[in-house]
Amino acid sequence: MKIKIINPNTTWSMTEDIETAGKRYARNGTEVYAVSPATGPESIESMYDESLAIPGVLSEIIKGDREEGADAFIIACFGDPGLLAAKEVTEKPVIGIAQAAFITAKMIAPNFSVVYVLDRSEQVVRDVVRLHGMEQFCRSCRSTGLGVLDFDRDREAGLRALADQGRRCVEEDGAECVILGCAGFVQFVDALRKELGVPVIDGVSPAVKLCEVLVDMDCKTAKRNLWSNPEPKEILGLSDIVKF
Amino acid sequence: MKIKIINPNTTWSMTEDIETAGKRYARNGTEVYAVSPATGPESIESMYDESLAIPGVLSEIIKGDREEGADAFIIACFGDPGLLAAKEVTEKPVIGIAQAAFITAKMIAPNFSVVYVLDRSEQVVRDVVRLHGMEQFCRSCRSTGLGVLDFDRDREAGLRALADQGRRCVEEDGAECVILGCAGFVQFVDALRKELGVPVIDGVSPAVKLCEVLVDMDCKTAKRNLWSNPEPKEILGLSDIVKF
Amino acid sequence: MKIKIINPNTTWSMTEDIETAGKRYARNGTEVYAVSPATGPESIESMYDESLAIPGVLSEIIKGDREEGADAFIIACFGDPGLLAAKEVTEKPVIGIAQAAFITAKMIAPNFSVVYVLDRSEQVVRDVVRLHGMEQFCRSCRSTGLGVLDFDRDREAGLRALADQGRRCVEEDGAECVILGCAGFVQFVDALRKELGVPVIDGVSPAVKLCEVLVDMDCKTAKRNLWSNPEPKEILGLSDIVKF
Amino acid sequence: MKIKIINPNTTWSMTEDIETAGKRYARNGTEVYAVSPATGPESIESMYDESLAIPGVLSEIIKGDREEGADAFIIACFGDPGLLAAKEVTEKPVIGIAQAAFITAKMIAPNFSVVYVLDRSEQVVRDVVRLHGMEQFCRSCRSTGLGVLDFDRDREAGLRALADQGRRCVEEDGAECVILGCAGFVQFVDALRKELGVPVIDGVSPAVKLCEVLVDMDCKTAKRNLWSNPEPKEILGLSDIVKF
Amino acid sequence: MKIKIINPNTTWSMTEDIETAGKRYARNGTEVYAVSPATGPESIESMYDESLAIPGVLSEIIKGDREEGADAFIIACFGDPGLLAAKEVTEKPVIGIAQAAFITAKMIAPNFSVVYVLDRSEQVVRDVVRLHGMEQFCRSCRSTGLGVLDFDRDREAGLRALADQGRRCVEEDGAECVILGCAGFVQFVDALRKELGVPVIDGVSPAVKLCEVLVDMDCKTAKRNLWSNPEPKEILGLSDIVKF
Amino acid sequence: MKIKIINPNTTWSMTEDIETAGKRYARNGTEVYAVSPATGPESIESMYDESLAIPGVLSEIIKGDREEGADAFIIACFGDPGLLAAKEVTEKPVIGIAQAAFITAKMIAPNFSVVYVLDRSEQVVRDVVRLHGMEQFCRSCRSTGLGVLDFDRDREAGLRALADQGRRCVEEDGAECVILGCAGFVQFVDALRKELGVPVIDGVSPAVKLCEVLVDMDCKTAKRNLWSNPEPKEILGLSDIVKF
Repeated sequence: MKIKIINPNTTWSMTEDIETAGKRYARNGTEVYAVSPATGPESIESMYDESLAIPGVLSEIIKGDREEGADAFIIACFGDPGLLAAKEVTEKPVIGIAQAAFITAKMIAPNFSVVYVLDRSEQVVRDVVRLHGMEQFCRSCRSTGLGVLDFDRDREAGLRALADQGRRCVEEDGAECVILGCAGFVQFVDALRKELGVPVIDGVSPAVKLCEVLVDMDCKTAKRNLWSNPEPKEILGLSDIVKF
Repeated sequence: MKIKIINPNTTWSMTEDIETAGKRYARNGTEVYAVSPATGPESIESMYDESLAIPGVLSEIIKGDREEGADAFIIACFGDPGLLAAKEVTEKPVIGIAQAAFITAKMIAPNFSVVYVLDRSEQVVRDVVRLHGMEQFCRSCRSTGLGVLDFDRDREAGLRALADQGRRCVEEDGAECVILGCAGFVQFVDALRKELGVPVIDGVSPAVKLCEVLVDMDCKTAKRNLWSNPEPKEILGLSDIVKF
Repeated sequence: MKIKIINPNTTWSMTEDIETAGKRYARNGTEVYAVSPATGPESIESMYDESLAIPGVLSEIIKGDREEGADAFIIACFGDPGLLAAKEVTEKPVIGIAQAAFITAKMIAPNFSVVYVLDRSEQVVRDVVRLHGMEQFCRSCRSTGLGVLDFDRDREAGLRALADQGRRCVEEDGAECVILGCAGFVQFVDALRKELGVPVIDGVSPAVKLCEVLVDMDCKTAKRNLWSNPEPKEILGLSDIVKF
Repeated sequence: MKIKIINPNTTWSMTEDIETAGKRYARNGTEVYAVSPATGPESIESMYDESLAIPGVLSEIIKGDREEGADAFIIACFGDPGLLAAKEVTEKPVIGIAQAAFITAKMIAPNFSVVYVLDRSEQVVRDVVRLHGMEQFCRSCRSTGLGVLDFDRDREAGLRALADQGRRCVEEDGAECVILGCAGFVQFVDALRKELGVPVIDGVSPAVKLCEVLVDMDCKTAKRNLWSNPEPKEILGLSDIVKF
Repeated sequence: MKIKIINPNTTWSMTEDIETAGKRYARNGTEVYAVSPATGPESIESMYDESLAIPGVLSEIIKGDREEGADAFIIACFGDPGLLAAKEVTEKPVIGIAQAAFITAKMIAPNFSVVYVLDRSEQVVRDVVRLHGMEQFCRSCRSTGLGVLDFDRDREAGLRALADQGRRCVEEDGAECVILGCAGFVQFVDALRKELGVPVIDGVSPAVKLCEVLVDMDCKTAKRNLWSNPEPKEILGLSDIVKF
Repeated sequence: MKIKIINPNTTWSMTEDIETAGKRYARNGTEVYAVSPATGPESIESMYDESLAIPGVLSEIIKGDREEGADAFIIACFGDPGLLAAKEVTEKPVIGIAQAAFITAKMIAPNFSVVYVLDRSEQVVRDVVRLHGMEQFCRSCRSTGLGVLDFDRDREAGLRALADQGRRCVEEDGAECVILGCAGFVQFVDALRKELGVPVIDGVSPAVKLCEVLVDMDCKTAKRNLWSNPEPKEILGLSDIVKF
């Protein structure tokens, strides 16, 4: 089985961390590989960034489906950018890491909080909580005030900021599980578990496991209506990026 | 890995069907076994039935955890009876089949409908839809008007009733996925997929796969507060049934 | 008229307090009596405790209905354990004390808060708030951190903890009415009214009065479908406890 | 105990029917009397009608509280017009008949439907369902297409229209209880119970019983903030109608 | 085009401030005039006040429609008192200032908070937030603790109180826009914008602009059913106030 | 004042219809011009189409803001594609036509229905209803089954399909206002008003008027946090399309 992870931003050092996290619990026989698209922003912290990342995400999904023989896809950015559009262009399973994190959290805890990057990214985080119908289980969303790439530049400071906000989620907001609201946080998951004493969940590892489940059971995306293939039509000026 | 499925009712022919469904997609190396408790009703179609089934369910979970070396548990009745209480008595993962069906449906379809047994069981079905926060994705709940055990007595009539209601879910309610709202329906899943032309999901098979995911990743139930172990206390008259 | 109160736990000293509270405003001619079931936990603070209390509750309701000539029933534990199942086994009115407290609070105040026992019992409290559709009127739920039986062991400390949390409900959360989230708190109702200066409501006394209303008006539980009598069926191993 | 019912419209023949319904289940020792205000519309079928009825309602509540020694008040029009304002002008209990009907229905049935007068009155009915937080328990609201006073002019036609819509509530919408959405329907309650085979609830009789409960228990309206007495201030041109 | 603003209270100094605010952004060719009704309270801070203001509001709308040739109407009190009833009595557009403020805020900001007068007025404010379906966009409602007329008596203190609460909305609650929850606050809008550094919105000015939009486009109120003209009927004792 | 309308698809015949509709009620002195981006699909009927249209939309907004001196922007496709991202890249007002239609409908009607193109576009329509918090006012969404461009190919058939579905919205769903759920439907608005007898609203004309309101009042988009300018960062491969 072949699982393709798409890191929607174009920072390949993050893509490598994500691939490592994706492989962590993968079964023998599951091939996991991660890529960044050829187009898009170096990090995703706003709706604008999301919008410019999505064409590249779709491009990688189409390529993975038509040319690379991938069996399932993961969109590895916490806003799950392009998730619904991606389901339209392939019948193979596509999972977002926010979705995977929510599913996992809900199976082992009564509620959760999300820690994320910049204050402004709250829009992206709340939207994806809502997209998956998780409002009632989400105790709080807390930002660290640091940008996506800051966590790579100063890992120590990044960890401290996450531990700090995570602790407030647990102690002040009553969260019994902390979800890491950025794919780049996968590097901190073990350290945070020790610090916080509650389950800490990144979405990348469980997304791979959930893809295995769907492929094992031969589950395909429903194509009756809402997520059926897009109507064939002329699309100007993006043919180098997306070829459906 | 050892996964114990508890069929909360005491009809062992159903338990066997459930075990078969549970084994269907299990990995090599995953041992799946299903039991019925020593106490409880022969079928579960009301809140009263649920109430009398739960002590036996808890008993089997405690036995599985303390004596049988099970790594994860599945409650195989569509109302997920006793799910939250079960999470309190073990830190090993416990999944209900309604929960597993909802998770799976949501990963591959924009919405779903549930077909179930008697009209009166609507209470049980709607409660479990709500427990898992799925109201907004559930297009409809339709009953077949047949009791749980009727489906074993006349499989042909059972299949016809399910296909009938399933078709109405798809055509009248716009459902793009049909969830089988009774563990006893696992026997019809293949026939219904052919009939309905949309994904048809029973909760038992995916519940086993989701248990594998959680055990692979060493995920334990959050024990900080809400689902922490029950306080030790005297419990009169049920000590033959539940020994915590 | 004969009203049977069932204290779902097996601590008879609490049952006596409850009976006293139940008689407090009962009319002449209303006979009020309280019992604990023969089976179940000595206190109810978790979903596990609730699950093991419910068979005994149902047993007492059936006995009250078939043998004792009771006209109405009260389940006197704040989670209203077994309420829906109880409505299935009799057509005589059954009221939970959480339900009675919510109804009364809503008739005299724009909103309310609930004070309850252990932190972990939040699950039970929030579930019953939701069961009765009261989320939008509930300003907050605050725990005292004390167990059910602690309030009997040290009444002074219990009262102090309740007054403390009650004050925070009023002053910090804007509650205009405080609901006592445990049947065992009936002993503190007068003291708390003086302390807090807002209406303080225990569910036991109003539950008796609401039963009188329903019996006076000859109201019976709707039996058309959802709450109709359970289907007759074999129930293993609990026949000493529940005989339907 | 003295309970004053205010029929917010000025049609005294309806006021008499309402008084009869109010006395039906009242205890010995409860004095029930019904009045119409000196000002206001002859029937209430729109928001405009409601707006012009409310000053008269408040006038009667103030008079009942200050001059007539009434112990509790009932607003007997299904939109509960002026209910919140009325709570501000007295600390004695005030109950609306929609509120009383909802409370009663919820104690004996899992859900309900409301049948009401003109199509246009849907606005009034849906608002009061929402005011009391009952959306999730309300299966449907169905109008008869007849005006309030039509039911007095041709009782037979009125009963037929109600039975017709009531039957659709039960059979098509799954309602297990039918609420009469107009005070003038009290005359049909017995006939409809026979016709429909489910509980049929008018709000007037239970409102009286709920007032008895609150007075028996010496419950007063919370006056800490939201429903505290209005600030004293000059009010132009209505002093003949409302004297606070 | 002629736009009539009704200040529902009878304090003409406020009416003048409101007229000034209404004219501020009006186009050449738009005539804006503001009145207070002949009846009603000098300020509106409770549901009681609202109830007594509404007949006068309706009276002015009817007069404006039938006699004064007004093309559109504005109800200039933050609870939008009588808004739905007003729509019944004319087919010309009627807008409330809360509605206008919400619409404007939502076009330029992701969320907002409301600052208002007395603590007790929270009931009025929350009701109008809910009437317009704005709960999910409203970060907080904060009171200044001052009465409507206090802001005229001591403008300095009023401004300080508003700036103080406004700052807490922004800094503690994350509001990105502050709505002034009282028509009398129009005088502070410029000062508050400077103080708070986020958009500050009073409802009066945008209500005039939105009326211009509707009149320009010849939009009339939907009269099919819910907001159709009231049925003609006898209305006792208010004929001096409201003549429909 | 200069208002730029962006038709997110690349079919210029539609862009011309949209420009005509945009000019219809514009004031003297308001310059309205409509463009299609250089990139993107010829019609928008799926999430995939939306995703590929958004970069071009953002490009046109940035160009309009930085180079063309536009004062406000309209996104003229019913899903309001890119609306939140657009607000990030300029502080000048940006309005979507769905948003404009909802605002207008709500000012003149108690509820509305939306008629749209293909069945599959329901996803897009329901998402935008939810984005603007309009679920509770939306009676129904009905598709015509025709694609965006079909309405240009056979206008007669298009009109018939719209009238047909519009009539069902009014008669079966109780809608009092019909919203046209596609920018291409502007050509049918007059014919449909005559046919349906209720207000029929296209979003393009009111969006222009609402832009005039915001520009007249000098309202700027809130830039404190969620919609602040995107962080400057490297964006690969789209620099020909979007230059921020």
